Amino acid sequence: MQRIAIDMDGVLADVYHQFFKMDEADFGRRRPMEEVAGKPERDGFPHIMQYVHTKDFFRTAPLIEGCVPVMEELNKKYELYIVSAAMEFPKSLEEKLEWMNRHFPFISWQQIVFCGSKQIVQADIMIDDHFRNLDSFKGNTSLLFTQPHNVKANTGRHQRVNNWEDISKLLLPNSGA
Amino acid sequence: MQRIAIDMDGVLADVYHQFFKMDEADFGRRRPMEEVAGKPERDGFPHIMQYVHTKDFFRTAPLIEGCVPVMEELNKKYELYIVSAAMEFPKSLEEKLEWMNRHFPFISWQQIVFCGSKQIVQADIMIDDHFRNLDSFKGNTSLLFTQPHNVKANTGRHQRVNNWEDISKLLLPNSGA
Repeated sequence: MQRIAIDMDGVLADVYHQFFKMDEADFGRRRPMEEVAGKPERDGFPHIMQYVHTKDFFRTAPLIEGCVPVMEELNKKYELYIVSAAMEFPKSLEEKLEWMNRHFPFISWQQIVFCGSKQIVQADIMIDDHFRNLDSFKGNTSLLFTQPHNVKANTGRHQRVNNWEDISKLLLPNSGA
Repeated sequence: MQRIAIDMDGVLADVYHQFFKMDEADFGRRRPMEEVAGKPERDGFPHIMQYVHTKDFFRTAPLIEGCVPVMEELNKKYELYIVSAAMEFPKSLEEKLEWMNRHFPFISWQQIVFCGSKQIVQADIMIDDHFRNLDSFKGNTSLLFTQPHNVKANTGRHQRVNNWEDISKLLLPNSGA
């Protein structure tokens, strides 16, 4: 059974929704997408480091559209691990675990990994929105999940997936989803 | 540079010290070592699941003798990761991170991994006191750190180390430690 390492923020959890909302509360206007597209997250939202350290930032993050049913099918056909580089935000660990349990009750605690660097992760397939995680990945297949910060980048040795429908077509080709 | 995955409970943190102390408080007598040696931890201490879910259980765990100076030297010569199967105890995550930061300020958050299963860990050397972690390890060198629960077991394909002096002799042979 092939093993997939799936990122949490920006792949399962819609952190940009939180960034836009909190940024709008701070600056009094909805920042247009073209101001953040193609920029590192920290450049797109000036107060981002405050946001990610705010209580309930992760707890209240919405799901990325369409991820739950595809995850449920993937979980039957692959060995899934959710791998989150959460160690930078110690207060987020419990929130993230609770968020996973609430939205993905079919994913057990044995399948969750919180780390600082993803270099230690051994898997066949990685799905992530950050080049820093995909570039050091030693497995066969690395999928770049589209998010505003990476939308203008060339994928390099990775394959781009724009949404969970793309992931389903690629990894569950016979499911008819 | 070779990578070492080092377990936390029973290798860095002296959890047996906590088990004996809390068990004595519950049963009114210090349980002799021969009652727990060679038994799974859960069989040695009847109330153990309460203990590991008690606030401050991990925060107040003492260090295993001699680990800090050896860890500091290993950290210069190897790529160290601290890998703890902490996900079973969600409330412990923050305590464990704080404990690491307090006792090992030279270990960065990038080097810490909390997981459920250690099967996802990619390293050359693993140091652990549990066969369930060592047996599935794919790296070259797996070291069984002696703890009461494993003291009577044959090491199988692993090499036994009784203390941090043994680890130093094996992994830092020219340090004169």
